Amino acid sequence: MRKPILGVMGGGSNRPAVDAEARQLGALIAERGWILLNGGGDGGVMAASARGAKEHGGTVIGILRGKTTRGASPDLDIAILTGMGDARNVINVLTSDVVIACPGRAGTMSEVALALNSGKRVILLGWDAGDGLARFQRKGQLTRANSANEAVEQAAAVIADLHEG
Amino acid sequence: MRKPILGVMGGGSNRPAVDAEARQLGALIAERGWILLNGGGDGGVMAASARGAKEHGGTVIGILRGKTTRGASPDLDIAILTGMGDARNVINVLTSDVVIACPGRAGTMSEVALALNSGKRVILLGWDAGDGLARFQRKGQLTRANSANEAVEQAAAVIADLHEG
Amino acid sequence: MRKPILGVMGGGSNRPAVDAEARQLGALIAERGWILLNGGGDGGVMAASARGAKEHGGTVIGILRGKTTRGASPDLDIAILTGMGDARNVINVLTSDVVIACPGRAGTMSEVALALNSGKRVILLGWDAGDGLARFQRKGQLTRANSANEAVEQAAAVIADLHEG
Amino acid sequence: MRKPILGVMGGGSNRPAVDAEARQLGALIAERGWILLNGGGDGGVMAASARGAKEHGGTVIGILRGKTTRGASPDLDIAILTGMGDARNVINVLTSDVVIACPGRAGTMSEVALALNSGKRVILLGWDAGDGLARFQRKGQLTRANSANEAVEQAAAVIADLHEG
Repeated sequence: MRKPILGVMGGGSNRPAVDAEARQLGALIAERGWILLNGGGDGGVMAASARGAKEHGGTVIGILRGKTTRGASPDLDIAILTGMGDARNVINVLTSDVVIACPGRAGTMSEVALALNSGKRVILLGWDAGDGLARFQRKGQLTRANSANEAVEQAAAVIADLHEG
Repeated sequence: MRKPILGVMGGGSNRPAVDAEARQLGALIAERGWILLNGGGDGGVMAASARGAKEHGGTVIGILRGKTTRGASPDLDIAILTGMGDARNVINVLTSDVVIACPGRAGTMSEVALALNSGKRVILLGWDAGDGLARFQRKGQLTRANSANEAVEQAAAVIADLHEG
Repeated sequence: MRKPILGVMGGGSNRPAVDAEARQLGALIAERGWILLNGGGDGGVMAASARGAKEHGGTVIGILRGKTTRGASPDLDIAILTGMGDARNVINVLTSDVVIACPGRAGTMSEVALALNSGKRVILLGWDAGDGLARFQRKGQLTRANSANEAVEQAAAVIADLHEG
Repeated sequence: MRKPILGVMGGGSNRPAVDAEARQLGALIAERGWILLNGGGDGGVMAASARGAKEHGGTVIGILRGKTTRGASPDLDIAILTGMGDARNVINVLTSDVVIACPGRAGTMSEVALALNSGKRVILLGWDAGDGLARFQRKGQLTRANSANEAVEQAAAVIADLHEG
């Protein structure tokens, strides 16, 4: 059976507290034996989560916007080159069994929305997506976690359900 | 000079008041001599805005999810077939000079976010996207309009700026 | 009923004899009342076929590789911006009712192959695609034309069949 | 340093001699410590090459056409879900350090052409792509191998060059 793939979304700009949480998230994903997938960039949540996973023996897949690995995190095991810009966001969410979204900007918000539109379970780590997606919170497809640990606990429950389903 | 392209986003489910506003929006876009672009579906905001534009002599482009015109609005002049599912949302927003978003669900929210991420001006017609995108409202890239007429007035100002720029 | 869309593929480098034939092809497509679709570039077959169509009152759609109209032919009526690089080749062939391929290089060959793989009728104008696609010639999905006029005659027969079918 | 990724292209229909060679190719790729990438399908060259790699302890990535793993080879370690149909062919070739193409039909031919158009080295295993791509053979970007072993030897030389370059 294939290992679960956890998609970690989030912004590219560096904010120390956000990045520390993302690094911890990467570590916990690796410790669970899951594969971490992100957008593969070399800054912010992408770089921090990849680093955390690699420090704990995990596997990291980056789905890159460009045609080369220029600007990619050094911690990727596998760099998927799309050359498709933002259209790769669709691949990020379709490939992930569960999506955990750290704080970000419009790119992250697009991934949250695309994931929900594809029926994926989405966990917001340390932020709220706002009223526009409240209906998904009401039906439990979108939840909030206050720590990397809580996010991973929620993800584990989703994965257990997927395997039973 | 190419005609301006107005992207009209919004949900596929039929809500009479929303659809009536979308039809009016299509009519006003046609009367301005602009091209209307949408996702090309045969329900909800997509079908209604296309209908409104065609009733007033406009041109309608549909960017379709599928590989055929099955399920397309009958009012399209040009059906662009992508076979790419939600990845066509990226094409919708890149091709539009201005995006007007009617009420919708996660698919519409993804288009609003992708448009903002690409630097496009986005006008919300009759709804709010929530706190998650508040920063774009503060800098004026995302605005709200209370009627189709107001949305088109705002769009006209953006287009005038683009042509001067 | 929507107007037929004729996809014109071919290389971006300027070869006078090839470009003259492409310009004539664009003219004939416009005279038939069909829409011409190509990759939207400002050189070679793309620019020449767009020019020919515009000189004869036609409508031209360019499916562009990039996120902006930089490097686009000045003769496009509608510029579809994909930001997807070569992945737009798939859109070119899916959107076309018939594909006419002028001489080109690997990009053109990829479009011929993608079109055949999608079940489209493909007409090679003034060249052969080689043994690798011979099976499609045997079953009549891929044919050769020796002039723009002959290519358009073949395309007209395909379109007549599509409308009856 | 990331492991080299070998793209194995080829048809989905089952031809025993072709599939046996593809299985052997997968085995040799695994033995080299390279990652095997293919289209992830459960028939023909895709299934056979994945099987060969897994039997020899390799890692297999499948870039799937669809939004789910339905119809995927059981031997994938990582299933990248694109939902983009043939547009995923672009991702296949961009992500591969070298492309080895086994016999196939138009889909395989499109991947060969897209790979050449992206500047990738392509090795044809046991077939010829025909005159349409002869210019690439003349400049050495496209070569032919008569056995899986010869293809892997050629690929090893390319990879050595990439790492020096």
